[in-house]
Parts: sequence; C-alpha cells; structure tokens
Amino acid sequence: MSRYWENLVSAIRKLPSVGPKMAERLALFLLKSEDTFGILKAIEEAKKNLKRCAQCGVFSETETCPRCNDVYRERRLLCVVEEIGDLDAMERSGVFRGQYHLLGGALSPLDGVGPRELRIEQLIKRLSAKDSRIEEVILATNPTVEGEATAIYLSQIIQPLGKKVTRLAYGLPSGVSIEYADELTLSRAFEGRTPV
Amino acid sequence: MSRYWENLVSAIRKLPSVGPKMAERLALFLLKSEDTFGILKAIEEAKKNLKRCAQCGVFSETETCPRCNDVYRERRLLCVVEEIGDLDAMERSGVFRGQYHLLGGALSPLDGVGPRELRIEQLIKRLSAKDSRIEEVILATNPTVEGEATAIYLSQIIQPLGKKVTRLAYGLPSGVSIEYADELTLSRAFEGRTPV
Repeated sequence: MSRYWENLVSAIRKLPSVGPKMAERLALFLLKSEDTFGILKAIEEAKKNLKRCAQCGVFSETETCPRCNDVYRERRLLCVVEEIGDLDAMERSGVFRGQYHLLGGALSPLDGVGPRELRIEQLIKRLSAKDSRIEEVILATNPTVEGEATAIYLSQIIQPLGKKVTRLAYGLPSGVSIEYADELTLSRAFEGRTPV
Repeated sequence: MSRYWENLVSAIRKLPSVGPKMAERLALFLLKSEDTFGILKAIEEAKKNLKRCAQCGVFSETETCPRCNDVYRERRLLCVVEEIGDLDAMERSGVFRGQYHLLGGALSPLDGVGPRELRIEQLIKRLSAKDSRIEEVILATNPTVEGEATAIYLSQIIQPLGKKVTRLAYGLPSGVSIEYADELTLSRAFEGRTPV
C-alpha cells in the first residue's frame, strides 16, 4: 500500500508467533483503533521503567524486586525456574515461600541457547556470595528434554559449591485417571513411589 | 510484577486474537527485545501518515490512493470487497483492473455491524456522483452468511441507481477433487453450470 504500511507489517512480524496473516490483521487493527496511542504509551513506559531485578531476574521497577526484598520470605531455599510464567504458577499455588532465580529459558544448543544465554553466571555469583544464606537449590525447570538437560548441567555446577540440590518430583498429575497417563509419566510415577 | 507490567499486558490484550498467555509472551518479548523502539516507531509513523483513501477506503499516504488515481485502470468497473486482504488477493491474481471499494467488513447485526458501520454511504455517493463513469458494480463479498446478506442489501440499494450489479461466481474451487467438495459448494456448482 505504501512504505509506512510495509514498515508497519514487517515490524509486527518481529513479534513471536505472529505470521504474515496475523501481522496484517494486527496492522489493520492498529491503524483503525483509537486505542493505538494508549497501547504504544503502555509499551514505552513499561520498557523505560522495568529492569531485571539484580538478584532473581524478574522485571521490576526497583534495582532489586519487592519479592527479593521481602524479609518474610525464606532465604535458605532458592527455586530456579525457566521463565516468569513458571514463577507465577508457583506463586499462585502458594506452595513455595523462598527466593527465586529466573534462568530466562532452558539450554537448547540447536536454538543457539547455551549457558551464556541464560542467567547462570548470576546464579553462581548469588550462591558463592559471602553473605549467601542459601542452603538448598530447588531445580524447577520444565519436564522437557531441554529442561532436564538444564537441570543436570546446573546440578553439576552447583554441587561443588556445597549446596544441597533437589529437583521437583515427577509423577501422576492430580485429578486425572491413570488410564490416560502417558508411558513416561507412569514409569516415573513407579520409580518415585513412596511408602504409605 | 508492577503496575507498568499490568498496564503493558492489558494494553496488549486489546489486540485482536491475543489471549492472556499470548499477551504475556508478547509483553515479555517487548521488554527483552532491542527492536522494541523500532517497532513502536513503525506503528506510530504508519498511524500518523496513513489515512483512508477518500474514494476506495484503503489506507494511503495521499488523499486519494495511487490505485484510484491510476489512469490506466478501468473506470467503468467497481469491485466492492469487505477487507483489504480480499483486495490484495485480487491484485495478486491480476484478474481485475478496475476500481475498488472497501466496505470495512460485512453486515452482522449480532456483532453490532449495521450499514452505518460499513462504508456504504461513501459507496452511494461514489455511484451517484455526476462525473461517475461506473457502469457495473461487482459485489465481491465473501461466500459467508454475512457476506451474502451484505451483497443482497447492497444490490437492493444499487440497482435503483441504474447500475448493473453482478456477483462473483460460485462453484468448485480449482485443483480439488469433487469427492471432497462440501454439499453447498456442489449444489451451487450445479445451479451455476454452463454449456460447454
């Protein structure tokens, strides 16, 4: 239509999971909508005001985030997660009241994600700090090939630092029938069986 | 995480076909990416510089778009389409070299889209203009319930203006087996059969 239109569509194409059709639809919406400048403002303000927390790595308005500063949270337990969504799920469930560390993903050599692309150096620093009160590192990466590989890699790095390293339990998800459980889940549920 | 984060996610939620999960993913991408300000600039520039063409209704940098000004395009034929995507498909196929008129959608009372929400008034004006050279209006709305209703509505309005009104042909799409054609398509292919 015009160079502005082409620039608009190709800019929107840079967003994750947005294909050519979706990009055109979003572009058209942004041209038509009266909310457009409001949306732009929200993005700009978030981008300018949110930085990664120097400790855990979540986006925060302050140098260290409110959760890391919260004196009522357990400081002996550190839970390592891939992404903010995992952390949010844990917070919603309310089962964990310790500290978090965000990796920003999982190791995936084929996608060009090596140890340097993740927040692993910051993790080591945190664990080796003189004033560190962390006693146990809970590896809560996802039960995928990449998540597993990341957990194994991290455990090899963390154990020499004299910290206890644990991994979330595998087994049957609650509320579903054993009939529908996949083989891997079932075999892990057997392996991890506990005395009643 | 913070009010900036919440504003960001709820702003992105306003985009069409973006659910809560996708909104968080896009928000995270925009916070992480170095392209973010470039994307914002492209949207802002497009929004500021593109206006609807006073004739056909496509977004254009100029008062009337280059296509409407193109003296080599047939002025007796006017093709009425719902959205810019339909127009693009026709231009790609190269089968039509006349003028276009964009409705901006199809009649859909349940979604609150009545004749006033579409560019129908502009269409009437265009057809009734003294210097109008349009002889035939080709209704190329989609073969959906809404598109059909819109075509019927438009034909009733346009015929009194003394213009020929036609509709795109229905039938079998090329390259597919009759075996897989749905009932409606087949019945329309029979109705519209032509002598060999």
